[in-house]
Amino acid sequence: MTAILPSLRLNKNEDRRLRAGHVWVFSNEVDTKLTPLTQFEPGQAVLIESAGGQVIGSGYVNPHALICARLVSRDPKYILDQSLLTHRLNIALSLRERLFDAPYYRLAFGDSDGLPGLVVDRYGDILVAQITTAGMEKLKTEIVAALQKVVRPGAILFRNDTSTRELEGLTSYVETALGEAPESITLEENGVKFAVPLLTGQKTGWFYDQRPNRARFRHYIKGQRVLDVFSYLGAWGVQAAAAGAESVTCVDSSPKAVEAIQHNAELNGVAAKVTAEREDAFEMLRRLRAARERFDVVVIDPPAFIKRKKDIKEGTQAYQRLNQMAMQVLSKDGVLVSCSCSYHLHRDELRDILLKNSRHIDRFMEIIEEGHQGPDHPMHPAIPETGYLKAFFVRLLPS
Amino acid sequence: MTAILPSLRLNKNEDRRLRAGHVWVFSNEVDTKLTPLTQFEPGQAVLIESAGGQVIGSGYVNPHALICARLVSRDPKYILDQSLLTHRLNIALSLRERLFDAPYYRLAFGDSDGLPGLVVDRYGDILVAQITTAGMEKLKTEIVAALQKVVRPGAILFRNDTSTRELEGLTSYVETALGEAPESITLEENGVKFAVPLLTGQKTGWFYDQRPNRARFRHYIKGQRVLDVFSYLGAWGVQAAAAGAESVTCVDSSPKAVEAIQHNAELNGVAAKVTAEREDAFEMLRRLRAARERFDVVVIDPPAFIKRKKDIKEGTQAYQRLNQMAMQVLSKDGVLVSCSCSYHLHRDELRDILLKNSRHIDRFMEIIEEGHQGPDHPMHPAIPETGYLKAFFVRLLPS
Repeated sequence: MTAILPSLRLNKNEDRRLRAGHVWVFSNEVDTKLTPLTQFEPGQAVLIESAGGQVIGSGYVNPHALICARLVSRDPKYILDQSLLTHRLNIALSLRERLFDAPYYRLAFGDSDGLPGLVVDRYGDILVAQITTAGMEKLKTEIVAALQKVVRPGAILFRNDTSTRELEGLTSYVETALGEAPESITLEENGVKFAVPLLTGQKTGWFYDQRPNRARFRHYIKGQRVLDVFSYLGAWGVQAAAAGAESVTCVDSSPKAVEAIQHNAELNGVAAKVTAEREDAFEMLRRLRAARERFDVVVIDPPAFIKRKKDIKEGTQAYQRLNQMAMQVLSKDGVLVSCSCSYHLHRDELRDILLKNSRHIDRFMEIIEEGHQGPDHPMHPAIPETGYLKAFFVRLLPS
Repeated sequence: MTAILPSLRLNKNEDRRLRAGHVWVFSNEVDTKLTPLTQFEPGQAVLIESAGGQVIGSGYVNPHALICARLVSRDPKYILDQSLLTHRLNIALSLRERLFDAPYYRLAFGDSDGLPGLVVDRYGDILVAQITTAGMEKLKTEIVAALQKVVRPGAILFRNDTSTRELEGLTSYVETALGEAPESITLEENGVKFAVPLLTGQKTGWFYDQRPNRARFRHYIKGQRVLDVFSYLGAWGVQAAAAGAESVTCVDSSPKAVEAIQHNAELNGVAAKVTAEREDAFEMLRRLRAARERFDVVVIDPPAFIKRKKDIKEGTQAYQRLNQMAMQVLSKDGVLVSCSCSYHLHRDELRDILLKNSRHIDRFMEIIEEGHQGPDHPMHPAIPETGYLKAFFVRLLPS
């Protein structure tokens, strides 16, 4: 089997990071004299070799991408095919089945599950998958077959419409690969029901990664006035209302989101407590601050302000401004839940932003809890980018 | 009130860290020409001033300690007295009452709760306190009075027998300051009962800081063979047995701990599943490895191997060896819960130790969850030392 695979030869010492556990190869690490990248098709399977010709493992290539190859198996006997996909998906499934009572979770999380370039969210018997590399795109038929074997789904939807696909020269599309994917499904998170749009929602529909943080959130809520900024489907806000908040204000700039929040509040019989406002988050906070409105609990769970390295400066400033305004609308002994899903904003940096803002308004801040992404989003220990989600639960007291 | 307080004058720019949120003053930061440290009594209240004579706030001094002063209030109207102690304890209590159903928690966590040098654990109406600075020692009577006011306890025990008191020139003793502290109390953690020795146990008796991590632990347990290393009272092991483990082996070097584990297993009707072994953890792991014994879940929750900076090298090696051996007794798809309470071993360093060890035995490691100390141990955002507890839930798969 392995004999038919072409080699991708690395430059001297460029095997070190891979041997230490990483799985990405950057284009400047390849010995392009010996193995020119241009000779490969996007997504082609290869054997990755050290400068000395030692096989490190099997992988796949994309000559057009900055991450020009990914290691798939350290045992070169195994290449990425339907059988290995099935094996890896089964291993991923066994973790989720151990940790969750119901089949609603991220089933596969890319590199962390040994499935570079593939994400699969499970909503009962509906699967929503997203492919982000040419190597995985090439195997779409095999992925569908493997998923059928592993979870026997009723439908498989590809939400291959993320902009990161451009990095691999892949086009953007949405496709039903099996069965009939419904417009929307209903799921339960921490005992609260949500209608989730699959075809037109953000990313793969629901943000399972925040589940444990939202479970902790419920402990802070009873009798409180809550503000949920960047509300999307009301995941935080509606759970707050269900957990006994006095009132909940949700803010989102999308009219569809506002409708969805109202619908989800109704689903749980808490519509009377939940107000959903269509407004830009920054504008809204500015307005609330000017009106001296106060909330006991504020949660800010924004989209990634820093998607690429070049956004770091501007994005960091956006987090800074946002957190400052959030603190300024907090009541005297208020709790702020501040999240960031930008890998490039490190945990310590977000903590420092919070500290600086608390000093700026001369209040004493305690960090009560720190949250991470849920266990259905495992982290690859050698790829810091796979551990992206931060949540700080902080309390702001008079100084 | 403030007029009677002497000043502690800082050197130029040494007010910056305090203004940024920190509360410690190191002895080399003091303008000792203007305000010689030798003029102060240990524990004396002072006004802390910048080099320019601006008052930063009130605090207390210990001329014999490296941390020679601590800022207590940024408003110099308030000094540390019974009234401020009562106020701060009430604020600390309100957080715990919000987060916990029963009065079993760390009520006060030093600097993080604005109570530098004071820790108080609550076991129903019994309080176990620990003082670690001269400033707090001086106020023992006021602390007792404030605690009486805030929680009306039946008994207050001072476990002032930690070695860190030496840094402040304080002697070591155990004292009942109010009522009659029982030898031992019974508490419930995550629904499991434990008898906890208060007078002779480690530190203040129970390690509340691991409560949320042990709550997560239960999800990994059903039907598994579990090894609990450094078991102490069996907090992890007995909870594992109660959560449906097939068998649990607990290891501790103390004969008293072994008795306590057995007793706690009996309390919960799981004695048949729990074996408690009196043995050195490293020895035991070596023996198990040599005998090719395997466990599905291993938890290592050792005492701090790095207490001071000078222990970093040796302590880090101990963590390295311990985690390596733990991985070597893990079954094929095993879960390791690896903890460290050493502040000086940073989160990223423990992660790297785990990664290196996994590569060393050629297995693929996923980080499933990361844990921190519980919310009754809030972190002071400017004092990284207050965020000391790390827990990694990792899965080890064949490479």
